[in-house]
Amino acid sequence: MPDAYRDLERRFARLTALRGASAILDWDSQTMMPAGGADDRAEQLSTLAVVCHETLTDPALADQLARAEADEAGALDPWQAANLAEMRRQWVHANALDARLVEATSKATSACEMRWRSARADDDFAGFAPSLAAVVALVRESAAAKAEALGVTPYDALLDDFEPGGRSAEIDALFDDLGAFLPGFVAAAIERQAKSGPPIELEGPFPIAAQRALGRRLMAAVGFDFARGRIDESDHPFCGGTPGDVRITTRYAEDDFTKAMMAVLHETGHAMYEHGLPTAWRLQPVGHVHSMSLHESQSLLLEMQACRGRAFIGFAAPLMRDAFGGDGPAWQPDNLYRLAIRVAPGDIRVDADELTYPAHIMLRYRLEKALIAGDLEVAELPGAWAEAMRDGLGLTPPDDRLGCLQDIHWSAGLFGYFPTYTLGAITAAQLFDAARRAEPDIVDGIGRGDFAPLFAWLRANVHGLGASLSTKALVEQATGRPLDTAVFKSHLEARYLA
Amino acid sequence: MPDAYRDLERRFARLTALRGASAILDWDSQTMMPAGGADDRAEQLSTLAVVCHETLTDPALADQLARAEADEAGALDPWQAANLAEMRRQWVHANALDARLVEATSKATSACEMRWRSARADDDFAGFAPSLAAVVALVRESAAAKAEALGVTPYDALLDDFEPGGRSAEIDALFDDLGAFLPGFVAAAIERQAKSGPPIELEGPFPIAAQRALGRRLMAAVGFDFARGRIDESDHPFCGGTPGDVRITTRYAEDDFTKAMMAVLHETGHAMYEHGLPTAWRLQPVGHVHSMSLHESQSLLLEMQACRGRAFIGFAAPLMRDAFGGDGPAWQPDNLYRLAIRVAPGDIRVDADELTYPAHIMLRYRLEKALIAGDLEVAELPGAWAEAMRDGLGLTPPDDRLGCLQDIHWSAGLFGYFPTYTLGAITAAQLFDAARRAEPDIVDGIGRGDFAPLFAWLRANVHGLGASLSTKALVEQATGRPLDTAVFKSHLEARYLA
Repeated sequence: MPDAYRDLERRFARLTALRGASAILDWDSQTMMPAGGADDRAEQLSTLAVVCHETLTDPALADQLARAEADEAGALDPWQAANLAEMRRQWVHANALDARLVEATSKATSACEMRWRSARADDDFAGFAPSLAAVVALVRESAAAKAEALGVTPYDALLDDFEPGGRSAEIDALFDDLGAFLPGFVAAAIERQAKSGPPIELEGPFPIAAQRALGRRLMAAVGFDFARGRIDESDHPFCGGTPGDVRITTRYAEDDFTKAMMAVLHETGHAMYEHGLPTAWRLQPVGHVHSMSLHESQSLLLEMQACRGRAFIGFAAPLMRDAFGGDGPAWQPDNLYRLAIRVAPGDIRVDADELTYPAHIMLRYRLEKALIAGDLEVAELPGAWAEAMRDGLGLTPPDDRLGCLQDIHWSAGLFGYFPTYTLGAITAAQLFDAARRAEPDIVDGIGRGDFAPLFAWLRANVHGLGASLSTKALVEQATGRPLDTAVFKSHLEARYLA
Repeated sequence: MPDAYRDLERRFARLTALRGASAILDWDSQTMMPAGGADDRAEQLSTLAVVCHETLTDPALADQLARAEADEAGALDPWQAANLAEMRRQWVHANALDARLVEATSKATSACEMRWRSARADDDFAGFAPSLAAVVALVRESAAAKAEALGVTPYDALLDDFEPGGRSAEIDALFDDLGAFLPGFVAAAIERQAKSGPPIELEGPFPIAAQRALGRRLMAAVGFDFARGRIDESDHPFCGGTPGDVRITTRYAEDDFTKAMMAVLHETGHAMYEHGLPTAWRLQPVGHVHSMSLHESQSLLLEMQACRGRAFIGFAAPLMRDAFGGDGPAWQPDNLYRLAIRVAPGDIRVDADELTYPAHIMLRYRLEKALIAGDLEVAELPGAWAEAMRDGLGLTPPDDRLGCLQDIHWSAGLFGYFPTYTLGAITAAQLFDAARRAEPDIVDGIGRGDFAPLFAWLRANVHGLGASLSTKALVEQATGRPLDTAVFKSHLEARYLA
């Protein structure tokens, strides 16, 4: 192994450790930290970010990268070569921005997130717009700088941070196809569900302690390793920590246990991916998840493909009944299944069902591309949002709280992130389909609460590969075809119209 | 403010943030982390330690220190000057050791701690001795290097890391005095307690949930700010985190609630000190606790001086009864007080009472000085320990588990730490006495569950001063006299013989 490459591995091991420290501190901020700890924590996280940025922009690192790339031919095995390529990608992203722009963006997004919290509470878009406009201006500056460094369009340069190698031309094709298919399909599915009459509602309250126990029981059935992770509570469910110590969270409400239960399964899908990453590479970039669409594919594969299916509901129904003393027809698997797949368009993305979720994403994708391209002003957002909601879901948001103020992403400077949710949904369908074809016992296994056949396939074809392949190549290798919408649409047809 | 000093403040703010990050991660390791997270966490903590060490040994920092010291006359206010002096002390400690020695010590102590756990379980001193000998050899090397840099003896150079400016000649004088006083005094106290017959034991079990609630109730009475801290559970009670986010822990046993309750009060004493530090200096060395003896003085002031006194027991007795449904003479304040001050020599330091604790410390102090001086070999420890226990407490440890294998400190390379426990006890007595003289309502306040008068005095005379004064100067300013054993002895006489 050439010296320059070995030195790079040492530097990136340090980066991995510092990022892991940040991940645990971020988890702590959202689960354990008392409110008064916010100032100390902000110093800790920003200092760690600065140290990471300094590590990536150290001129010595640039030299080592250049030397390792010059040495490469024949000297590195495919994993090392993929590792080196991912190091270079991280280097390009970090070095494209000067320190002034990084600092200005960090300050503007902190201020904007704070402003967003009160603006959303007060439905005050006008008061919020200048903060968001400041963020958009800085993000456009970053996008231009990264576009120059990467040789892609400004929006694709932002996308590349979450979706390495992702290009909006390809997303446009997928989304145009889905956008043409979904409105009519959603209407048909709603009509079909209306014909059978509404499912019977489950009567609460559902004690939180019983919800916690049910969640842990289902995580155990899925195969979550509690010796290498935890579940806790936070305002918004997430999966954090490190591959060896995965921290997932959920939130509970006494009047509905199904949301928390499905959130736990969703986050467990993310966690199983982290647990399945190749441990020999745990300190290197190639040992981590390569793209947000793949990460989301694993949460949606577990939640949407596996756990909203009839087989899983059949397995889980008696556990749900036992947990809450449920009885009668409402708790029969068929009714529970109908509740799990109920379609109902609404204003809020995070409450959306499987069928209407893509419309929320396509709306945001279109608007954020226009903001970055300079074709849309921040002041025009509420109008553009309302129009897009009418087009996509036939709804008009009653106010901006339920409209363009509902998500924190843009305030936090996250542009190029939204499309990965729906890319993940499409990828999940294609992977689950391939898995079932390869291992016919997968669905029956899930019906018995045995997820081993499913995860054996996912470990071999997705998790264990880390970032050794591009997302595109991995999907094609695992499923035998490039990513397209055909399998996703078949899945929806089978579930909602069959 | 001169530029060089301002640059130093920026560097040390970064160090404070990195140390705060380490403190929270260390807390997490002991309270939240699943066992499988240990490898990832070890990488995170050692990387943070390396980054801190690099920051302190960066040649640019040495230049800035020299320039700031040259500028100093007239340019810095007293807090800035104290801050600069503490920066220099930290620099000397970090730069005295070369990277090879730091790394070798880190590896040897990690291995020795691991070896210690199994050796203690198996009572296998012979198998453990080589690991400890390797640590002692490296610590002696560090001591020699630091002695050279600081111009003090090797043991004092180690002591200086925990007790800046502390010198063993002064500790010898205090400990010789106490060592002459205590054996006879302990015998007299035991005889005195025997005459009154044994106190009535409290009958458990004491449910853990009720113990948790009682602990939080007492923390609230003391004035602990739950918006800036937490209490959790760990194998060994400790106080960690940062001044703005103090994390204390305890452990509970169903058969005895008083140990956990007193541990909570002890750690709350540490926490109140952290909370009372000057927030304007929170990112600088001068804004932190200056010495371990002062830190321990605040935990022992609350636990031993305040909360094992009759006034506090009078306030807490009805809370204890309510917590556990206690009834009858065992739960009367007089009996609870007798239980709280019961004297009983034993083998284990952490279980020792107020009167016999110093003997455990003086033994360790004497032996660790001899190990560092080369006057005692590791192989001779068990014999020397047994002899010292006979001299100090009239007990012979039945085995090494209850003897020289009971503490982790030396395995972890902590030499020079033990004496600060008893320095803290002596300091606590002298400070509490001065506080009561200055504010006559302090003890009556405690009797009403009102700790405000006590903490008003401690905030003004101890906590709020941070590290702006040396420990010696602070004690003398706060109490009107240098530290000596007179007040501590008077306190013991009043409590155990009056």
